[in-house]
Amino acid sequence: MSELRIDDRLWSAKARNLSPYVPGEQPQHDNLCKLNTNENPFPPSPTVAAAISQVLADQADELRLYPAPESDDLRQALAQWYQLDSNQVFVGNGSDEVLALVFASFFMKERPVLTPDISYSFYPVYAQTFAVELVKIALAADFSVDPDSYRQPCSGIIIANPNAPTGILLALADIRKLVSEHPNAVIVIDEAYIDFAATDDNTAVSAITLINEFDNLLVTQTFSKSRSLAGLRVGMAFGNLSLIEALTRMKNSFNSYPLDKLAQAGARASVLDSDYFEQTCQTVINLRESLTAELTELGYQVLPSQANFVFARPKQGHASEVASKLREQGIIVRHFDKPRIEEYLRITVGTQAQHERLIAALRAMQAVDSVDISQ
Amino acid sequence: MSELRIDDRLWSAKARNLSPYVPGEQPQHDNLCKLNTNENPFPPSPTVAAAISQVLADQADELRLYPAPESDDLRQALAQWYQLDSNQVFVGNGSDEVLALVFASFFMKERPVLTPDISYSFYPVYAQTFAVELVKIALAADFSVDPDSYRQPCSGIIIANPNAPTGILLALADIRKLVSEHPNAVIVIDEAYIDFAATDDNTAVSAITLINEFDNLLVTQTFSKSRSLAGLRVGMAFGNLSLIEALTRMKNSFNSYPLDKLAQAGARASVLDSDYFEQTCQTVINLRESLTAELTELGYQVLPSQANFVFARPKQGHASEVASKLREQGIIVRHFDKPRIEEYLRITVGTQAQHERLIAALRAMQAVDSVDISQ
Repeated sequence: MSELRIDDRLWSAKARNLSPYVPGEQPQHDNLCKLNTNENPFPPSPTVAAAISQVLADQADELRLYPAPESDDLRQALAQWYQLDSNQVFVGNGSDEVLALVFASFFMKERPVLTPDISYSFYPVYAQTFAVELVKIALAADFSVDPDSYRQPCSGIIIANPNAPTGILLALADIRKLVSEHPNAVIVIDEAYIDFAATDDNTAVSAITLINEFDNLLVTQTFSKSRSLAGLRVGMAFGNLSLIEALTRMKNSFNSYPLDKLAQAGARASVLDSDYFEQTCQTVINLRESLTAELTELGYQVLPSQANFVFARPKQGHASEVASKLREQGIIVRHFDKPRIEEYLRITVGTQAQHERLIAALRAMQAVDSVDISQ
Repeated sequence: MSELRIDDRLWSAKARNLSPYVPGEQPQHDNLCKLNTNENPFPPSPTVAAAISQVLADQADELRLYPAPESDDLRQALAQWYQLDSNQVFVGNGSDEVLALVFASFFMKERPVLTPDISYSFYPVYAQTFAVELVKIALAADFSVDPDSYRQPCSGIIIANPNAPTGILLALADIRKLVSEHPNAVIVIDEAYIDFAATDDNTAVSAITLINEFDNLLVTQTFSKSRSLAGLRVGMAFGNLSLIEALTRMKNSFNSYPLDKLAQAGARASVLDSDYFEQTCQTVINLRESLTAELTELGYQVLPSQANFVFARPKQGHASEVASKLREQGIIVRHFDKPRIEEYLRITVGTQAQHERLIAALRAMQAVDSVDISQ
């Protein structure tokens, strides 16, 4: 669509001033090595397709009826898995929709919302959509979050944990500090990638474990990453029932039925198959560690990731050039042309075969570069 | 959830002030005669379940990938069916989500938006959510829309056509008048029920036929009624490409991927099966006419409906009492406790068997009432 033909005469000022989120591209070519949007390299639990097929076999006629508006069965399954009450659980059409409702429900206030300067690029978009003042707090030089730098008046804080695109995990003790130091602000921990995180001593990493302690903590998660269901659009939030009630009312003022009948059934089946979930997460974690080792061996500086991607800085050559050269070979990684991170590439953890293809391409690139330099 | 336990201390002012939409209830009892939420009594086209099953069989693994963010294949199918260009078509998570984006994109302006005093009860909710001034224009005494009463400064007009809960159709000539008299306002015609409408001479009833003529006309529709897919959550808008572009940008500032992979495939299959669609609509129309005749015979005053419901006033007894008595027998119809319409019942067109059960119950009720009166 040519931009020249667009006439914004009838748009609202809000529509005119938007800078929409730009998702990583979804090219549809064969033999692509797609390591750019942090999808899971493994399929969802087979029970997901089975549960949806069951609905189609037994109740296809019931697609004529509206689905359960509050997705009760799915919320019940999530509550059971996380040892919460159903009224501490909210679900939406992907965690992106959940986050939009979070901004509207808790952040549309006079005081600003604090967030790391380097984080999920949808946060500034939501801030614009909902006229929320977003103040960016610089990450430390090693790209970690320093909780002490958040000691300022605010109506909320939103932190992705592990952070994206760095992959770095903020410890639970630091989250506890943030939540207790800001009793009158809503602290949102966006745990899209938390299921790939682990501590050395196997203690908890998810802030969900703090929910019964604090009424100002909201944790968001998604089925798109660890549960391999980006195609099904399901996200969730966990928090004190009063926070969940605000989200529910906001949802019912936008769109009463965000989750269709099949998505509810499929997501629920995924939650019930905990063995598959845990095995897949562990496999991705192992692959992340081997990818990190291989990139390090190639001279890349790789940040310590607890997510299903790594953030890596090439030894030689500009990151944007490396990304372009990989693209020529059908390998897609993500490069952000932004201050502080323009020399890094975000590479999604893929299968072993995808890693071999990536590493071979990078090695060949370095060999050519070495020849160039020696000439 | 007890209201007493809700603490709104951390909510935004917007969240505190919401009066969320209250959808018709979705009771889950057996043998219920559910005539309260205007769902289609017939199942969706069998090709819908077949298409979704095909995705599950061939590409279940691809549920791990994000779906097409702009639902290209579905939009293409809709464009072909309605003889439009793809860039004149927008799709969303039910027409409720589409309407929310419409309010944000076109109605957040200084001038008010005009709408009939009796119409879809989500419009005032959106107005509150997006801080839009909504001015209600009284329907005529016969509940019809008088286009002349909309001659006042506004940024937009939204009219459900056929209107809900009256079922009355506004003629295309009147819509043309509204659109041409307000060149600087966006005129939204919410055609959730249009596929059940027909003119005596078989001329067009949908405002989609005017889209290439006017750049300020937006038409919304849904898969929830005529396509029997309320459970799949798909709605759409048709309009000039500049209006569609605004909706797309607004969507991408809320939630980039509102339609999951299965919903896209299922909705597309429904569009492609035009024979089934036309047959089902005609059957519902026939059933509406027979229901109207039977209610009229019982002494009900029935408004001339072009939708898949009728709006009917009992000859004797209060509408709310009739609704309660029907409920005791497992027959659910909708009663709105609102000025001008409190004496009417909105009854969804059901199957022949459901109509027989309803009419028998109403007849028995009148027999008892007659006895009461004669005593």
